[in-house]
Amino acid sequence: MRDPEKTRAQIVSAAFDTIHRNGFRATSVKDIVTKAGVTEGAFFHYFRTKDELGYALTEEILKEMMLDRWTRPLAAYENPVQGMIIRFRKLMESASDEDLTLGCPLNNLTQEMSPVDEIFKDRLRAVLGLWIDETERHLKRAQAKGYLKTGVNPRQVAEFAVMIEEGSAALVKNLGGRNLYRSLYESFRQYMLSISDRPERR
Amino acid sequence: MRDPEKTRAQIVSAAFDTIHRNGFRATSVKDIVTKAGVTEGAFFHYFRTKDELGYALTEEILKEMMLDRWTRPLAAYENPVQGMIIRFRKLMESASDEDLTLGCPLNNLTQEMSPVDEIFKDRLRAVLGLWIDETERHLKRAQAKGYLKTGVNPRQVAEFAVMIEEGSAALVKNLGGRNLYRSLYESFRQYMLSISDRPERR
Repeated sequence: MRDPEKTRAQIVSAAFDTIHRNGFRATSVKDIVTKAGVTEGAFFHYFRTKDELGYALTEEILKEMMLDRWTRPLAAYENPVQGMIIRFRKLMESASDEDLTLGCPLNNLTQEMSPVDEIFKDRLRAVLGLWIDETERHLKRAQAKGYLKTGVNPRQVAEFAVMIEEGSAALVKNLGGRNLYRSLYESFRQYMLSISDRPERR
Repeated sequence: MRDPEKTRAQIVSAAFDTIHRNGFRATSVKDIVTKAGVTEGAFFHYFRTKDELGYALTEEILKEMMLDRWTRPLAAYENPVQGMIIRFRKLMESASDEDLTLGCPLNNLTQEMSPVDEIFKDRLRAVLGLWIDETERHLKRAQAKGYLKTGVNPRQVAEFAVMIEEGSAALVKNLGGRNLYRSLYESFRQYMLSISDRPERR
C-alpha cells in the first residue's frame, strides 16, 4: 500500500517542477500525474481541481521556500543586516544557469495568476506580505542591537529589500547574465551598508 | 478616404490598451479591430499576424513610452541624479489607481511573452537594454559634473535603478497600495542621495 501523505507530497512536488518550467495555465493535470508517476484518480483523491492544487502549492511549497531561503536563516546572524547581504550573495552564487533563466517561482506565479484569479491573488499576497513582515522583524532586531541607523524605518527597508530580491531575479530572468546579478547584488550591499551603523564584517 | 498612417496608428493604440488590460495571448485580432473601429481586412493590410503587431507595439509604443517617461526628461536636469529622483516621484504621483493595478505594460509583456517567444524576447530585451544604456549615459554626465561620487560605477547604478523602477511597479501591482509605492520611492531617493556628491536641491 502507498503512503497517502507521501503520494500527496509527490503530486505537489511534481506540480511545482512542471509549473515552474511551463507556467500554471499551460500545465495540465495529466502533465502533473505523468511527472509524479501516479494516476489521475490519485490526483483527484487529494485535490478537487487543478486550482486547488495551485493554492496548496502556494501555501506549502512557495511559502516554505521563501522562509527557508530568505528569512529563517537570518535568525542565525547576530547582525541581521549583514545576514541579509550574505543571504542575497549565497542565493545568487548557488543558483544554476537554469534557475536564473526560469526566475523566481513565487514571482512567476504571481505575475501569471494574480491578475486572473482572486483566490490565487490573496494567497500569493499573503506569502509576499509574510516575507516583508519577517524581514521587518529581523531589521527591528538589528536596530535594537545598534546595527541599523536609528533614523531608518525598518518597515520601509523591509519593503525595499523584498522588492530588490524579487525585482533582481525578474530582471536577470529577462536580460540574462550572471554579471548583471552580481552588479545588482553589489548595489544592494552598498545600499544596506549605507543604512548600517557598524562596519561590515565577514 | 482614410489616412493609412492614421489607421495603422489607431490599430496599434487600440492593441496597446486591450493588451495592457488583458494580456497578449488573451487578446484576439477581433478584440483589437473592435476597439480600433476598423475591419479585419484593414488589420491584415498592416500586419500579417497578431505577433507581428506585438513586435511593432514593443518597438513603437513601449520603447517610446519608456524613453518619454524615464530617460528623455533627464536631459532637462543640470543634475541627472536629482532628475531621476524627481521623475520617479512624478510618475508615481501621476499614476491613477488603475495604472497601479494594471502595472507597467513593458514589464507585463516581458513576463508573459519573453519565456515563450524568442522574437518578443529579443525586442523586449532591446527596450530594457536601451533603458539601462540611456540611464547610464545621464549618470556619466552626472559624474563628470561632480554630482555622482567618483568611486561609483554609473553602469552599476543604472542597472540597479532600472531594476528598482520596474520592480517597484511590479510589487505595487501585486500587493497594492499607494503607501507602498511612496515607501519604495523614499528608499530609492535615499539610495540615490547616498551615492550623490552634493546635497539635494528641489
